[in-house]
Amino acid sequence: MLHIEREINEQPDVIRRLIKETDLDKLIAAIRDFDPTFVMIAARGTSDNAARYAQYSFGIHLKLPVALATPSVHTLYGAQPIVSRALVIGISQSGSSLDVRQVIEDANQQGALTLSITNDEESPLAQTSQFHIPLNCGEEISVAATKTYTAELTAIALLVNALQPQTGLDKLPELVSRTIQSSERIQDWIQRYRYASHLAVIGRGYNYATAYEISLKVKELCYITSEEYSEADFRHGPIAVVQDGFPVIAVAPQGKTLPLMQDLLADLRTKNAECLVISNDDGALSYAMYPMPLPGDVPEWLSPVTAVIPGQIFAMQLALSMGHKVDRPTGLTKVTITR
Amino acid sequence: MLHIEREINEQPDVIRRLIKETDLDKLIAAIRDFDPTFVMIAARGTSDNAARYAQYSFGIHLKLPVALATPSVHTLYGAQPIVSRALVIGISQSGSSLDVRQVIEDANQQGALTLSITNDEESPLAQTSQFHIPLNCGEEISVAATKTYTAELTAIALLVNALQPQTGLDKLPELVSRTIQSSERIQDWIQRYRYASHLAVIGRGYNYATAYEISLKVKELCYITSEEYSEADFRHGPIAVVQDGFPVIAVAPQGKTLPLMQDLLADLRTKNAECLVISNDDGALSYAMYPMPLPGDVPEWLSPVTAVIPGQIFAMQLALSMGHKVDRPTGLTKVTITR
Repeated sequence: MLHIEREINEQPDVIRRLIKETDLDKLIAAIRDFDPTFVMIAARGTSDNAARYAQYSFGIHLKLPVALATPSVHTLYGAQPIVSRALVIGISQSGSSLDVRQVIEDANQQGALTLSITNDEESPLAQTSQFHIPLNCGEEISVAATKTYTAELTAIALLVNALQPQTGLDKLPELVSRTIQSSERIQDWIQRYRYASHLAVIGRGYNYATAYEISLKVKELCYITSEEYSEADFRHGPIAVVQDGFPVIAVAPQGKTLPLMQDLLADLRTKNAECLVISNDDGALSYAMYPMPLPGDVPEWLSPVTAVIPGQIFAMQLALSMGHKVDRPTGLTKVTITR
Repeated sequence: MLHIEREINEQPDVIRRLIKETDLDKLIAAIRDFDPTFVMIAARGTSDNAARYAQYSFGIHLKLPVALATPSVHTLYGAQPIVSRALVIGISQSGSSLDVRQVIEDANQQGALTLSITNDEESPLAQTSQFHIPLNCGEEISVAATKTYTAELTAIALLVNALQPQTGLDKLPELVSRTIQSSERIQDWIQRYRYASHLAVIGRGYNYATAYEISLKVKELCYITSEEYSEADFRHGPIAVVQDGFPVIAVAPQGKTLPLMQDLLADLRTKNAECLVISNDDGALSYAMYPMPLPGDVPEWLSPVTAVIPGQIFAMQLALSMGHKVDRPTGLTKVTITR
């Protein structure tokens, strides 16, 4: 079995363990005591997509504005934006990104509250930050991250839930497991896309992050161009590129964004786009050339944890159909040290 | 003459007028008095790319962290992240975006300091915000924004300069004019890309914004897929898609990011990518299939105002070579009302 396939299948257990074992008591007390005026998150690649989820979930549930850090301001320009009243979070699977660590170091010096989320407690990033949430995923061998991404999302959800109790977290491992099962059908129709040369992935709200992450998996594994958009930004220009047969993956689970995503799907139909739909809504799924169903009982705020999974499996199956080395894509390395 | 061509050519005059006539005294006094802990900017499309420039220029010169707003948190989820200590800025050419205005309205209610930057003083957004910087561009008729984008960048630069004096602003209209002149050669070689189906545009630091904006112009005008990246994020996965002949536009002016961009160009050469380079550095330009030279004396912090221009002209010329309706791209409207 491929490493990536095994790691995708490990996600229910990883999430179950994370929910059960993560102890946030001291961190929550520190956040309450510090009372940050905003949050800054430094991350790259897949972890940056987890940061996008935090932007929405912190904004909606905690009323905390989230800035995504621009690490080169620190590393290339030697400037230090003032974050002394902020909770500054570094997210990195490996914990080895030099630029993410620099943001945390600068924040420590300024008296900010700092937190890291990594899969390696011994990593430089974990050691540098005042608090650390370990992902405890076990080693991730595939270059393309899967289980560490959903673990990062879950860690963010746990933090939200600890600060402002929500519902549904306990059901998440089971929902993820069911999503993996229902995504088995993707291999029955994936061959149709063997010669696709490009793709767009659209989401909005919480699932803006999902659109980014699915698009990144497609790029990493399949070597085809893929673009990711919020439904709003897509309508602001890029929708112009949609022509007959243009393949679009719409991430459209039930919730506040569903009516807008359904409108978009209707518009894409008039343009003869080819839509693939990730949803737990029959109306949205009816627009799909092939549906990628989600379990019906996912609360919207947790939907990104399940909605990314059909995308992970789509990208893996498409890469296999193309004959690519899925666990070790050409030209990529697991740990990228950004200057 | 096409509207877009005329509007591109108007840019030196627009910028000259903006530098001469913009009166920021009351705004600067209000910002000093308010002493914001961070900045939040709400914008869509081209204006969101101007916001990316603000992220870097405010961070580097003013030490102010910048969060890009997530308007759907307000409009779809009905939540209001707390911005009472923030300078909240709405940027919109038309000033008609409902979601951007909602962010400003919510900020007003919370006691934030609010500012809008628009090309219409009578627009809802301009009327809603406490302060307003008028772009005074004259009407922009082409659907694809050009002069309003460089005017937005200039307004941001004026604000930076007023809070923390910098050098070079007075030379900007002349530099923009020379960039337009040197970009005339693009039409001599554009035909080579008539059948290109995709493109990537890479920048970093201040010119991360430029990569986004050039890519957006290509998508809006040429209906081909284009991807935009920071040099760092590109190396974190998407670089995997680069194969023989893959066309890449590198935005690589002199400054702190140049060594990293040169390293990337060297790597792209080993992958047999086809590089187009926007730069005022001979070393960087030497990697180019076709160089797009910038004037040598642009200070790095203002380089995005000049560096976008070859990209605007590239996108326009490519669209013409493809036979597209350049002023009125199919499927787009000038004003997009986002819910």
